[in-house]
Amino acid sequence: MLYFKTAGESHGKCLIAIVEGFPAGVLIDEAVINSEMKRRQGGLGRGGRMQIEEDRVEILSGIRKNITLGSPICLMIKNRDFKIDELPAVTRPRPGHADLAGVIKYNQKDARNILERASARETAARVAVGALVKILLSQFGIDVFGYVRGVGGINSDKFLGDISVGRDIREKSPMYCVDREIEAKIVERIKETSEKGDSLGGIIEVIAHGLPIGLGNHTQWDLRLDARLAGALMSVQAIKGVEVGLGCDVANKFGSEVHDEIFYEKSAKNKLLTGGFKRITNNAGGIEGGISNGEPIVVRAYMKPIPTLMKPLRSVDFLTKEPITATYERSDVCAVPAASVVCEAMVAFEISRAFLEKFGGDSLDEVKRNYEGYVSNI
Amino acid sequence: MLYFKTAGESHGKCLIAIVEGFPAGVLIDEAVINSEMKRRQGGLGRGGRMQIEEDRVEILSGIRKNITLGSPICLMIKNRDFKIDELPAVTRPRPGHADLAGVIKYNQKDARNILERASARETAARVAVGALVKILLSQFGIDVFGYVRGVGGINSDKFLGDISVGRDIREKSPMYCVDREIEAKIVERIKETSEKGDSLGGIIEVIAHGLPIGLGNHTQWDLRLDARLAGALMSVQAIKGVEVGLGCDVANKFGSEVHDEIFYEKSAKNKLLTGGFKRITNNAGGIEGGISNGEPIVVRAYMKPIPTLMKPLRSVDFLTKEPITATYERSDVCAVPAASVVCEAMVAFEISRAFLEKFGGDSLDEVKRNYEGYVSNI
Amino acid sequence: MLYFKTAGESHGKCLIAIVEGFPAGVLIDEAVINSEMKRRQGGLGRGGRMQIEEDRVEILSGIRKNITLGSPICLMIKNRDFKIDELPAVTRPRPGHADLAGVIKYNQKDARNILERASARETAARVAVGALVKILLSQFGIDVFGYVRGVGGINSDKFLGDISVGRDIREKSPMYCVDREIEAKIVERIKETSEKGDSLGGIIEVIAHGLPIGLGNHTQWDLRLDARLAGALMSVQAIKGVEVGLGCDVANKFGSEVHDEIFYEKSAKNKLLTGGFKRITNNAGGIEGGISNGEPIVVRAYMKPIPTLMKPLRSVDFLTKEPITATYERSDVCAVPAASVVCEAMVAFEISRAFLEKFGGDSLDEVKRNYEGYVSNI
Amino acid sequence: MLYFKTAGESHGKCLIAIVEGFPAGVLIDEAVINSEMKRRQGGLGRGGRMQIEEDRVEILSGIRKNITLGSPICLMIKNRDFKIDELPAVTRPRPGHADLAGVIKYNQKDARNILERASARETAARVAVGALVKILLSQFGIDVFGYVRGVGGINSDKFLGDISVGRDIREKSPMYCVDREIEAKIVERIKETSEKGDSLGGIIEVIAHGLPIGLGNHTQWDLRLDARLAGALMSVQAIKGVEVGLGCDVANKFGSEVHDEIFYEKSAKNKLLTGGFKRITNNAGGIEGGISNGEPIVVRAYMKPIPTLMKPLRSVDFLTKEPITATYERSDVCAVPAASVVCEAMVAFEISRAFLEKFGGDSLDEVKRNYEGYVSNI
Repeated sequence: MLYFKTAGESHGKCLIAIVEGFPAGVLIDEAVINSEMKRRQGGLGRGGRMQIEEDRVEILSGIRKNITLGSPICLMIKNRDFKIDELPAVTRPRPGHADLAGVIKYNQKDARNILERASARETAARVAVGALVKILLSQFGIDVFGYVRGVGGINSDKFLGDISVGRDIREKSPMYCVDREIEAKIVERIKETSEKGDSLGGIIEVIAHGLPIGLGNHTQWDLRLDARLAGALMSVQAIKGVEVGLGCDVANKFGSEVHDEIFYEKSAKNKLLTGGFKRITNNAGGIEGGISNGEPIVVRAYMKPIPTLMKPLRSVDFLTKEPITATYERSDVCAVPAASVVCEAMVAFEISRAFLEKFGGDSLDEVKRNYEGYVSNI
Repeated sequence: MLYFKTAGESHGKCLIAIVEGFPAGVLIDEAVINSEMKRRQGGLGRGGRMQIEEDRVEILSGIRKNITLGSPICLMIKNRDFKIDELPAVTRPRPGHADLAGVIKYNQKDARNILERASARETAARVAVGALVKILLSQFGIDVFGYVRGVGGINSDKFLGDISVGRDIREKSPMYCVDREIEAKIVERIKETSEKGDSLGGIIEVIAHGLPIGLGNHTQWDLRLDARLAGALMSVQAIKGVEVGLGCDVANKFGSEVHDEIFYEKSAKNKLLTGGFKRITNNAGGIEGGISNGEPIVVRAYMKPIPTLMKPLRSVDFLTKEPITATYERSDVCAVPAASVVCEAMVAFEISRAFLEKFGGDSLDEVKRNYEGYVSNI
Repeated sequence: MLYFKTAGESHGKCLIAIVEGFPAGVLIDEAVINSEMKRRQGGLGRGGRMQIEEDRVEILSGIRKNITLGSPICLMIKNRDFKIDELPAVTRPRPGHADLAGVIKYNQKDARNILERASARETAARVAVGALVKILLSQFGIDVFGYVRGVGGINSDKFLGDISVGRDIREKSPMYCVDREIEAKIVERIKETSEKGDSLGGIIEVIAHGLPIGLGNHTQWDLRLDARLAGALMSVQAIKGVEVGLGCDVANKFGSEVHDEIFYEKSAKNKLLTGGFKRITNNAGGIEGGISNGEPIVVRAYMKPIPTLMKPLRSVDFLTKEPITATYERSDVCAVPAASVVCEAMVAFEISRAFLEKFGGDSLDEVKRNYEGYVSNI
Repeated sequence: MLYFKTAGESHGKCLIAIVEGFPAGVLIDEAVINSEMKRRQGGLGRGGRMQIEEDRVEILSGIRKNITLGSPICLMIKNRDFKIDELPAVTRPRPGHADLAGVIKYNQKDARNILERASARETAARVAVGALVKILLSQFGIDVFGYVRGVGGINSDKFLGDISVGRDIREKSPMYCVDREIEAKIVERIKETSEKGDSLGGIIEVIAHGLPIGLGNHTQWDLRLDARLAGALMSVQAIKGVEVGLGCDVANKFGSEVHDEIFYEKSAKNKLLTGGFKRITNNAGGIEGGISNGEPIVVRAYMKPIPTLMKPLRSVDFLTKEPITATYERSDVCAVPAASVVCEAMVAFEISRAFLEKFGGDSLDEVKRNYEGYVSNI
């Protein structure tokens, strides 16, 4: 079974990801992983640390001569500012962070012992995993694409059509948007907000093309593809809302407006994936009954503004109980572009997991044979 | 480790839930479970089957003389209309259901082999589990409360204050609302929609009071309390969006508007749970960094309208590939009240899981001793 | 992922097994399961309860018209002597049972609250699961065969050649032996021991034929096939030793005597499973490096004599702390034949799990296609 | 929940272990871990590589200023002979290794892609984990002790009394024995065997003192402490047999000889752990019904001789199918002392897991409070 875990603290030696259940025989180009690492570090609105980091992945295990072995893959990203033991104690918990709850839960006197792990720095390891599994998915024509749909209330209402077109636009966008109209407004909003010492959240959309019908399960609550995607997205630091397809809006509509009617076209272009069944709408976001239905997976995550503000929030020193203002740890105004890379990684991971659960196999050849047997049978 | 699984088909012999990791020594009143079963069957907008069912839980294992043994608890709800073998084949997949995707995934010629398990009838077993774990939580003063915040676009904007007041109102509300103003409008909307043969979705809010600070973990992506809650809620049939606290709205606000500043009051009324730290706002919905922060947990789930319409949707017979209208299986106009009971159950389960992970213990006495040791140390 | 859990107490309403991850499309003959239930109840040396029980499996879910649906399969075996609430309290813990440790762990005052679940009656549910998975394995020519190799020190030194011949002998043997010479001696030993009010243990061997090379994993400690088989066998009540292949004897030999040299024969009869590679010895018991190597899996489990003796053991009343003799609950002299059925079930389960992990697939057709693709590629 | 996974290949960059669920607040002395690393590398009978390695653990995460944080702990052991990409292909599978089965399973043309991970070098990571969890266990007076009971048929029949006495003897023994009489004979046997180019296996015993009554569970097959210990021991490379307490011998005895009668002594010296209940015998090896009973845990593992012989075994080149002799990869005559350290580590891990499942807690203080509450209540 595919799974991954991460380890590592923000100013510790490194971040680590371990991935188990990845098939043997997949060619891994480190440069592809590193370009994802770079993408996570980019985007307008980031503070000074991003320049220090220049994350690069080092493969510690599971790959020989650039080919996966089927054994656990361990990826390391070194922290260039490793100084965790020297950093001062933090006794002023920051609202919106794990600081206070973590200190009490783990019986600590220094919130640094919590915040070092709770930090979004951990997402570097997730992005490395995402890059790895996207290489696997690409072997099956599955393309996962995350982008920024909105920041600080300036939200796109455009539907993203072709991912490859979107990717070209996104690559040039400082905000990882695919809608140039809102982008300029967002850039302006970030500038203003930066000057005020405030911060901004935003909306991330992740779309996955090329999934065959039949990933995920309707048979048990914790095997549903939508449940797993929701959990994976909500696990990303600062995400407070998650939706699939039409999402929260479904609550306000009639049934006759929501469900995606089913049609059949003998020579539908994605016939291989759906057997010729097709939809004209995709309000379901590609998942019905917890199973992929052959349409693109569409999910959205809603990110809160970064809680560490230059204009600090009121808090209490947890040792003295004196009112104070919260410790200022970081200076990003907006981390939504970075989070879009993380959300893309998490979606790619959950799709890969469902994919390998269905198709089994220990080597890429075997997974392919099983996959092809299935799709040619659809 | 607490977990549960369900089994059973909609028109099979029964629904089954198995719960493992539940401590010994808890007094279980079957009537309490059955009153939850009844609540799931109630609510305005349900079709004919609800009258047939009159669900009652039968305890098959894990409880002796009404006291839990610490061994797996198996709960059965018999189906009064057990006739799965006699029911006709379904070859007309219903949009919005698992029918089509399931038939292809599992290589079936009869969608009944899918829909019987994908049916929301399965939630009866979840509600039984929810009732069980709420009995446990009540021993620790934790109260989980789900209600309907809106139906078909008629949404309450009131904040629910006191759960016990809310419960009184909800018990009398045909829509499981706590806002009488919107209720009348919703009832009207359901009536109109019923006449049109259409269906309605809605918004469910679940609030949990009484959690100590420190449930959940910031240390690993899949241990975060918000991630687990999101997965659990999205796993409920027909849910397409999930949020925590302020939820999706966070994306449109400034950081200075979102985060809940921290204060201290020596004699705060929930001091036992938070050590005197308190908030004036609860935009975080009681979870920061994946850990409960002592404020009420607030989550919302957005439910789509039931896809089985009296005015059927277009589909395709998957054997003949001929266009048809989808099979009509059920007749509810609105199942949001029922889903609110299910969402409450799922939230109660995930809180119980995090609770027992933190406090360990094999008997209620031991869990209590560990819990009390912790809260008196906060 | 295939897994199973059981629930139920010895004198509760029933035993329950839930099996998840079983593929759709498998024809299940209830009579086959029930014949295994009967086999568990047979064998010389059992006391009076076996006559009462006449276990029969009732399928509660996951199967429609005798075909699996891919949804969780729930199997129930009713207890004919359901009287758990009426049975008297037990305060005299029996040596060799969970009674004392369980009472303290779970903070109980009545050991019945422990022994009802710890009882080997629970194995009825395991045997039902074993019967189910053996039906699956039989579709792939995998045959799992458990038998009694020895009782009370009278042990066979014969190697079991052909399973089908062994099965014929076993079916007629009151001791589930395949070596008629020792059987007569064992029957005599049981008779003598019964008269003395004592009890006997024995040795169980389980052999599995027909596995392709490549089940299990060398990549992680808890994925090794031998580790899982050892855990599964040791989990059977009263088993205190487990071995694979030559087993414990390996410790006393030279390397040159132990390892199975590798040969190749283009037209080897099991070529499909091993690609023509073959061994002349099978000291490894079919597993090298945690992976099946195409030779028969051979494992053994060593069972202790039943601790409930007619000549009771010394103990202490845990309430009064007075020395007493232990409560007499059951009257079997020897339960090794029954345990051989349980061990066979556990081995069949772990092989099925490894099989489905490798081959994936949601329906029998898909599993077969994947399996055939693999073996034809070997 | 405590778990660990390892990653890394024998000649890759490093071995990695990740441990999750370890409580915060535990002081970790790296020197203690490194002395265990050294112990694994010692023992008579090892070949040349042991001198190269000089394993040292580097802590990558989860620990700050020598104190655990509650976040995942990642331990790295660098390989001094990192050259995996340069090493030649292996097409001659070695009997007794994963080579052949792995190559076919993972569709490889070079057995190095298998043997690098299947190698017992992986156990370095397990020993690091073992050292870590033993530091935790020592906080609760739990002492886990592994030693060599026999090699090549020269087996001790002495019962190990006091662990602390045994440890003194073991520390001075080149064979990690505690019975000086057999040691001299073993040393002689190894010398002879080395000259013949053959190899030897042996018997390892692990004893754990100081466990309270009540670890493990009787409630589900895969939660039993004996089942988990058996799986963990059998997962160690080259182990083919596992037993608890009297072990396999139970099969040959009468019930009246096997079960440990129960006595009570108000002022028994281990009263804290057992509530005054005590045994005179410990044939059960400290586990009844899957639960620790307060007596020392006693388990044994039977190790086969190392399969890589200087006098190579017959095999077949899997590409050409020509008969050959197996590739010679390593030169140990006997690795039983090293394996005793690994078995000790695995037992310590499983006991820690059961311990933390029972007592919960996020910090050492909390675990201690919960533990003390329990034992003072026994």
